[in-house]
Amino acid sequence: MTSKIRVAILGYGNLGRGVEAAMPYNTDMTLVGVFTRRPPEAVKTLTDVPVYHVDELLAMKDAVDVLILCGGSATDLPVQSPEWAHHFNIVDSFDNHSKIPEHFAAVDASASSGGKTALISAGWDPGMFSLQRLLGNCVLPNGQDYTFWGKGVSQGHSDAIRRIEGVKDAKQYTIPVDAALERVRAGENPELTAREKHLRECFVVAEEGADLARIEREIKTMPAYFEPYDTTVHFITQDELDRDHAGIPHGGFVLRSGVTGLSGETSQLIEYRLTLGSNPEFTSSVLVACARAVVRMDKAGMHGCKTIFDVPPAWLSPKDGAELRKLLL
Amino acid sequence: MTSKIRVAILGYGNLGRGVEAAMPYNTDMTLVGVFTRRPPEAVKTLTDVPVYHVDELLAMKDAVDVLILCGGSATDLPVQSPEWAHHFNIVDSFDNHSKIPEHFAAVDASASSGGKTALISAGWDPGMFSLQRLLGNCVLPNGQDYTFWGKGVSQGHSDAIRRIEGVKDAKQYTIPVDAALERVRAGENPELTAREKHLRECFVVAEEGADLARIEREIKTMPAYFEPYDTTVHFITQDELDRDHAGIPHGGFVLRSGVTGLSGETSQLIEYRLTLGSNPEFTSSVLVACARAVVRMDKAGMHGCKTIFDVPPAWLSPKDGAELRKLLL
Repeated sequence: MTSKIRVAILGYGNLGRGVEAAMPYNTDMTLVGVFTRRPPEAVKTLTDVPVYHVDELLAMKDAVDVLILCGGSATDLPVQSPEWAHHFNIVDSFDNHSKIPEHFAAVDASASSGGKTALISAGWDPGMFSLQRLLGNCVLPNGQDYTFWGKGVSQGHSDAIRRIEGVKDAKQYTIPVDAALERVRAGENPELTAREKHLRECFVVAEEGADLARIEREIKTMPAYFEPYDTTVHFITQDELDRDHAGIPHGGFVLRSGVTGLSGETSQLIEYRLTLGSNPEFTSSVLVACARAVVRMDKAGMHGCKTIFDVPPAWLSPKDGAELRKLLL
Repeated sequence: MTSKIRVAILGYGNLGRGVEAAMPYNTDMTLVGVFTRRPPEAVKTLTDVPVYHVDELLAMKDAVDVLILCGGSATDLPVQSPEWAHHFNIVDSFDNHSKIPEHFAAVDASASSGGKTALISAGWDPGMFSLQRLLGNCVLPNGQDYTFWGKGVSQGHSDAIRRIEGVKDAKQYTIPVDAALERVRAGENPELTAREKHLRECFVVAEEGADLARIEREIKTMPAYFEPYDTTVHFITQDELDRDHAGIPHGGFVLRSGVTGLSGETSQLIEYRLTLGSNPEFTSSVLVACARAVVRMDKAGMHGCKTIFDVPPAWLSPKDGAELRKLLL
């Protein structure tokens, strides 16, 4: 009889809740506790898992097989992942693509010196989308990559709108442009601008008496965030926003369009699509599967920092090799 | 400077030609030779690669890093893979799903005793589709798998039609039923019969004076092959068949429809789609990427029989870890 994998959560927001909710679906794992910087009694969990202050975490080292870091990529993970990777096997969802090499190096140094295994940038992008990009590149080396996001809520763009004077609340959807997707599917291998790939649709609650025309102009001309895109702005009431836009759906497409044959005469297309009812719950589900693999890599002596690119896929599964070959190969 | 991976091909049909054609896209590899059971001078290759008789293969052991077996799953691979896995690192595309456990055991015994690495069942199904089924199961453990094939040519079904009296030539397309795909995408998690999932469309060239009504009836009532499906039969001329149905396109869909959230209240959908201009050329491209991984697994001391489930995805790529993290993560 194998004992269950003992998981701890650090940070209890949307991601932490997602990991907690994913536990019953992963019966080879057990949740030891939620660790938080807040007073533990102030944290209301979904289940009866114990809540501890983060100051108690180090002392519980021997009771935890893997620590899932559920903080944000802007300020939490750049500090927390290197800090905890020395003492625990960890998984994080660091998603600042341009800073991944730097984050990897910091976590690798810490995990290696501690003799632990860390897996960074798990989730869907980076994560499952990255894996699809890699597989597409390996199988069709003569080809082109396309990633489209949406339809889904962009937290960063929603926040940017909320910072505009006169805006009370807002939600922004990123939407892939169908015509661009169709050109890729048709094997045209187009060079696409930001505007050709994605639309931005904004639902904005304005403060009473605010100048709506000015708000709309400020959104549409905001550099980097909205100016390079065709943007639509809808002013709605807070009730409407709460009623119709409460979810955090997301998703998107990874396509690899390539050619084979001695003269490149044959078109081949790989398309991977996610349609996610909840962005954080899906990300959490990936974190949990990766946590299983991290424990196995640690046992196999594969220490230091890893990514999804390094994980033998079978190690993400609770099933053994013979079962997987029989059922899924 | 790393030296190139030295590849040999055993068996020169559609798959062997596909591997040969894939070589220029994989500049870290070099093709040492094509090995055949036929008189070598009777084999006309696409490039100027040397052709040898299979009897010369064993003597060239030290000149080959990995042998790609390009024979068929019915009679060639069950014999060849166990035979050659003892002497060479090998990759095969064994695709008889129900016999994979048996094939794995035979190849594993041979490769293990020879201290070599073998990877079986590479291609798209089994292969990339299997990998997507595995990933879907790991990330959404509470869900259902759906695999649809097509639109594409089924060699087995085309052959079955050709064996009917009065049939000169034939091509059969397997076509996924849109309505079934849409029900899966809508999160209905339907139980689907064979008839609900796929259509079969047949293009048949009859011999002069043959009884067309009888041929059509024999096709449509053929047990297992056509009886469980809605089948359409078109009689056409040999010229039309040669002109309009010369290609070997294929593809299909792997979907994982699942739920997350503590009460399973959130729908999540993963969809993977292949649209292949040439089934054998794509399969060959997968074989080549797997051959690279096999050489690395051998160097790492990971001997015995493996499948795509055991391969760290980064090992399929010619790029190193840092480059992959920077470009694709």
